[in-house]
Amino acid sequence: MTTSYKYVLPVLAASLIASPAFAQEVPEHGVFILNSLLFLMAGFLVMFMACGFCMLEAGLVRAKNTTMQLTKNVALFSIAAVGYYLIGYNLMYPLGSWSIEGVLSAVFPSVAILEAVGISAEQADDLSYAATGSDFFFQLMFCAATASIVSGTLAERIKLWPFLLFTLMLTAFIYPLQASWKWGGGFLDEMGFLDFAGSTVVHSVGGWAALAGALILGPRLGKYKDGRVNPMPGANLPLATLGTFILWLGWFGFNGGSQLAMGTIGDVADISRIFANTNAAAAGGSIVALILTQIMYGKVDLTMVLNGALAGLVSITAEPLTPTLGAATLIGGVGGLIVVFAVPMLDKMQIDDVVGAIPVHLIAGIWGTLAVPLTNGDANFGTQIISIAIVGAFTFVVSGVVWILIKMVLGIRVSEDEEIAGLDSAELGMDSYPEFTR
Amino acid sequence: MTTSYKYVLPVLAASLIASPAFAQEVPEHGVFILNSLLFLMAGFLVMFMACGFCMLEAGLVRAKNTTMQLTKNVALFSIAAVGYYLIGYNLMYPLGSWSIEGVLSAVFPSVAILEAVGISAEQADDLSYAATGSDFFFQLMFCAATASIVSGTLAERIKLWPFLLFTLMLTAFIYPLQASWKWGGGFLDEMGFLDFAGSTVVHSVGGWAALAGALILGPRLGKYKDGRVNPMPGANLPLATLGTFILWLGWFGFNGGSQLAMGTIGDVADISRIFANTNAAAAGGSIVALILTQIMYGKVDLTMVLNGALAGLVSITAEPLTPTLGAATLIGGVGGLIVVFAVPMLDKMQIDDVVGAIPVHLIAGIWGTLAVPLTNGDANFGTQIISIAIVGAFTFVVSGVVWILIKMVLGIRVSEDEEIAGLDSAELGMDSYPEFTR
Amino acid sequence: MTTSYKYVLPVLAASLIASPAFAQEVPEHGVFILNSLLFLMAGFLVMFMACGFCMLEAGLVRAKNTTMQLTKNVALFSIAAVGYYLIGYNLMYPLGSWSIEGVLSAVFPSVAILEAVGISAEQADDLSYAATGSDFFFQLMFCAATASIVSGTLAERIKLWPFLLFTLMLTAFIYPLQASWKWGGGFLDEMGFLDFAGSTVVHSVGGWAALAGALILGPRLGKYKDGRVNPMPGANLPLATLGTFILWLGWFGFNGGSQLAMGTIGDVADISRIFANTNAAAAGGSIVALILTQIMYGKVDLTMVLNGALAGLVSITAEPLTPTLGAATLIGGVGGLIVVFAVPMLDKMQIDDVVGAIPVHLIAGIWGTLAVPLTNGDANFGTQIISIAIVGAFTFVVSGVVWILIKMVLGIRVSEDEEIAGLDSAELGMDSYPEFTR
Repeated sequence: MTTSYKYVLPVLAASLIASPAFAQEVPEHGVFILNSLLFLMAGFLVMFMACGFCMLEAGLVRAKNTTMQLTKNVALFSIAAVGYYLIGYNLMYPLGSWSIEGVLSAVFPSVAILEAVGISAEQADDLSYAATGSDFFFQLMFCAATASIVSGTLAERIKLWPFLLFTLMLTAFIYPLQASWKWGGGFLDEMGFLDFAGSTVVHSVGGWAALAGALILGPRLGKYKDGRVNPMPGANLPLATLGTFILWLGWFGFNGGSQLAMGTIGDVADISRIFANTNAAAAGGSIVALILTQIMYGKVDLTMVLNGALAGLVSITAEPLTPTLGAATLIGGVGGLIVVFAVPMLDKMQIDDVVGAIPVHLIAGIWGTLAVPLTNGDANFGTQIISIAIVGAFTFVVSGVVWILIKMVLGIRVSEDEEIAGLDSAELGMDSYPEFTR
Repeated sequence: MTTSYKYVLPVLAASLIASPAFAQEVPEHGVFILNSLLFLMAGFLVMFMACGFCMLEAGLVRAKNTTMQLTKNVALFSIAAVGYYLIGYNLMYPLGSWSIEGVLSAVFPSVAILEAVGISAEQADDLSYAATGSDFFFQLMFCAATASIVSGTLAERIKLWPFLLFTLMLTAFIYPLQASWKWGGGFLDEMGFLDFAGSTVVHSVGGWAALAGALILGPRLGKYKDGRVNPMPGANLPLATLGTFILWLGWFGFNGGSQLAMGTIGDVADISRIFANTNAAAAGGSIVALILTQIMYGKVDLTMVLNGALAGLVSITAEPLTPTLGAATLIGGVGGLIVVFAVPMLDKMQIDDVVGAIPVHLIAGIWGTLAVPLTNGDANFGTQIISIAIVGAFTFVVSGVVWILIKMVLGIRVSEDEEIAGLDSAELGMDSYPEFTR
Repeated sequence: MTTSYKYVLPVLAASLIASPAFAQEVPEHGVFILNSLLFLMAGFLVMFMACGFCMLEAGLVRAKNTTMQLTKNVALFSIAAVGYYLIGYNLMYPLGSWSIEGVLSAVFPSVAILEAVGISAEQADDLSYAATGSDFFFQLMFCAATASIVSGTLAERIKLWPFLLFTLMLTAFIYPLQASWKWGGGFLDEMGFLDFAGSTVVHSVGGWAALAGALILGPRLGKYKDGRVNPMPGANLPLATLGTFILWLGWFGFNGGSQLAMGTIGDVADISRIFANTNAAAAGGSIVALILTQIMYGKVDLTMVLNGALAGLVSITAEPLTPTLGAATLIGGVGGLIVVFAVPMLDKMQIDDVVGAIPVHLIAGIWGTLAVPLTNGDANFGTQIISIAIVGAFTFVVSGVVWILIKMVLGIRVSEDEEIAGLDSAELGMDSYPEFTR
């Protein structure tokens, strides 16, 4: 485009030379489009993580509980869509302005969340950002991911409807409220807390909610007996591996989309760094788990390798931008190490986490948040710790109260007979693999 | 970019101020690129729906027919690619100019569908739209999706080659011809029929073709006996759930890409609305099926929940843009309700639809098309009904004739012995799960 | 944007009219962003191919070796990430400047691969290309794909760690070195060798490495007995089909991303051609295998159809841009033909290739490379042959040496007892389907 300017009046040419960079930049509307496109693309990748969680969990439970695990995952994703839209999104952005009107605004067209159809530039909610619909879509997927984390830990013994009721509380209230503290510009953000894509805001929150649930629900029958841990192997490891790969894929959207902008050279180069680092961290986590399980047990443990990759991904989520590729690999590697040590540790504490979500999402989430100051000079170690503690205390306590209330009112655990028979036949009357088992 | 203009000659500045908005818009080439990118991105998402259909259907048939179902799905997608390219695309765009030259044009390089390699702006077929290759790619995937719908209904009893012959007729002639009436600018379009992404043009067409086939083919042996419905549960529910999630993912491309443009603020904001609404409708359909099956049967039915989500997606496909999030959730919810009532209704009529494709794609497709006037003031209820009827009558009759002709010439149904033994051993000699069954 | 110019001073207007096209082009920063976006999008699609390979292979091995196949695939992808980042990427771009500093540069932040955080236009490594991080991400996925090819051929008998050691050699040295000859601007590139997305550089290299391994490793016990081929059917064909569809999807990124640019009309139209042709070739390969197996064996063979589609994809990879849709379909069709004839041919030679990777990636890769001159006038048949031979000889010999060294030092094959028991119980102590088998 500049070429044409070579021929214009000197005075005009001079004025353009005065700011040559501008002539090469993406026009304002283009920035809006590219930012929105980032949210849509990253959003569908994160949406697919719901499938990843579902496959991972369905592969790691026993055959007799598989239909239930599938049902929970489809249902929780659907409930998150409604809970976040009716209440959560308004509660999260912006903090403070949430009100009964906010809730009502989602229901009635005249005051809806989304921008109008076919808006002009003047009608955009924020021309310097992105389409509100794309932002909502992207943010919703984060909220749903938080709920997906919980379902794995509590598998094989929790009743369907009490679990779904908790999901509604988590996605409509608990997640959005604490997320507003950081991402809604709340007090944690003002304190200088850094959590790029949510090692704490998403992953540890899912982990804390799961931990509270696991403590109140108790371990599966026969899991811990006479001081020994009774392994209950998953029925379908290809499914669990598929789920891990899908999550790995989705994480590029999770971390990359959290750049929140793609309309400048700096932004797209940052997203590129994030993609590369996210992959490096997953690789680091998986390799460390591979090597460690070989050394410690004399045999590689696939489920540890899968969880190692996921823990690597969680670890880099708080800061996928500033690390070098080497640092990202190492940060992810520590995630893998955490998994290998934390999984048996939880078992020793008789906290029964069916898929290892607490090590992966809670403990590696804490590690990732603490690792931010290692590569990002703007981060303060003390602020990170305090923020982790505040978010953790809030989520653990509120989740615990909700779990206890649900337990009191509805009960949360199936009967012993039902648990032994399996949730699929007892609660749903439908086998996942009617021709493969027995 | 505008900043530089602050320093130019007053007369020039004034002229620019006269139309300040233009200075911020995406340049014409950028619009072409963004539109093409939308088609490519949406296209690969819709392509993945072929995998979703395949997994859904493979999970819902019995183990002894699984290899056949997989084979049909891979083959139909391949045949659609050839049939649509050789004949269908030219038949669909534009109606009327189709001729023997059109067919020939696809075969000989000199008159090919795609634009030349490395075109300049002047050589683009339509500079204001998108690359022809991207449009072809996107449109092909819609045609293939139509064929995927049919295979599920007719599973477990139809012969391979007759099915594939029908697929060729459907993708080369039936789908493109009726699609031209709306999307090729034909008479339905001129009448004011509105069907944004194809609740009628794609989904009901697949459904009508499947219904015609199911009536002519008859139910599976033993499915309806002494007035009772004999359940024949699918062999692999995680696979069916995987397929549903993949379809859900692909639907963002299906509906979002149907905006056909991404180069302006209005377009990208509309695509964002569409993504959010599409997700809301799927959630609505799944939740309604979840709650209804609990109420009606005392147990949640996973296959109904999966089909509820899909029916929600089909329901919103005719108009994913104008509804609010709340309306989209409700429109999808009605889709879920349709599934829960239509599946047993079809069984009562002894129409054997193995995967529930007729309730999901045909009945929810009609509902979605009828729902357009509820949120879009440009739609006319009468026109919608007439258009549904015309497309339905055409597709049902022509499909029926094709099915009957194929039945007369080749036969369409395997023998009783083969059906009992399973199509995999009888027709293919290859088990899908050789170590899991028996 | 041009509209505003209608009102400016005549002299200015005249100057703009002198080059009207420029005013419509994407600004330089926009080109950089779109190119980077292409790499990121194509990159995540190719990344997902790792999942596709994993599912394909896990579905085609027997149940007793499935956990091992899953472990290898997750591990090889992780090792590729580290090997390519530490050594391979620097070795590949540019050839010659690689040195010990290159290796060190990846480890220490001050001399890292990725551009700095939040770069301005001036700080971009190459403003006319794309973000270095996006290029690295995209290139890494190609390297990893090469390693994925090898694992399928050698399944069910190779030890875990020796395989992973080979993977490290392949991804850090063998692949990058030969790739630099073409894609790093090396001597094959200067000779005029054309290989758009890597039929030779990626697929045949994986195939040659696999062939060398298969010869040194020998066939599975009992595979060839008394001159007869003993079929060892895969345990999970839906998984293999899923993997094929995922690979098909990922290939749009593989071939489309290899355009390396998306910022002009010519580039996006070319990418569109590539998407359409890639799909056509896969369809062609699958249809030919469908028809041929029906004719030759009287029964369609699903695994041949899947491999036919993949061979079609490999065949079009060397030149996905210049063919017409018809030519692409035919080029892919020959790939399908190759599979149907080469699979039994390899068996006759007692080369045991568990998943058919040698026909698909090596033989169809050679075919695809030879087919370039058929549609691209710039290609020279002789140069193509010489280049195939050079890359083949190098890869086969070096891979062979590495395999022999690993065999001598570590051993590469499990014991007979372990092979009969299955690698899962023998090497890993973990069944993939503990409830489905026996």
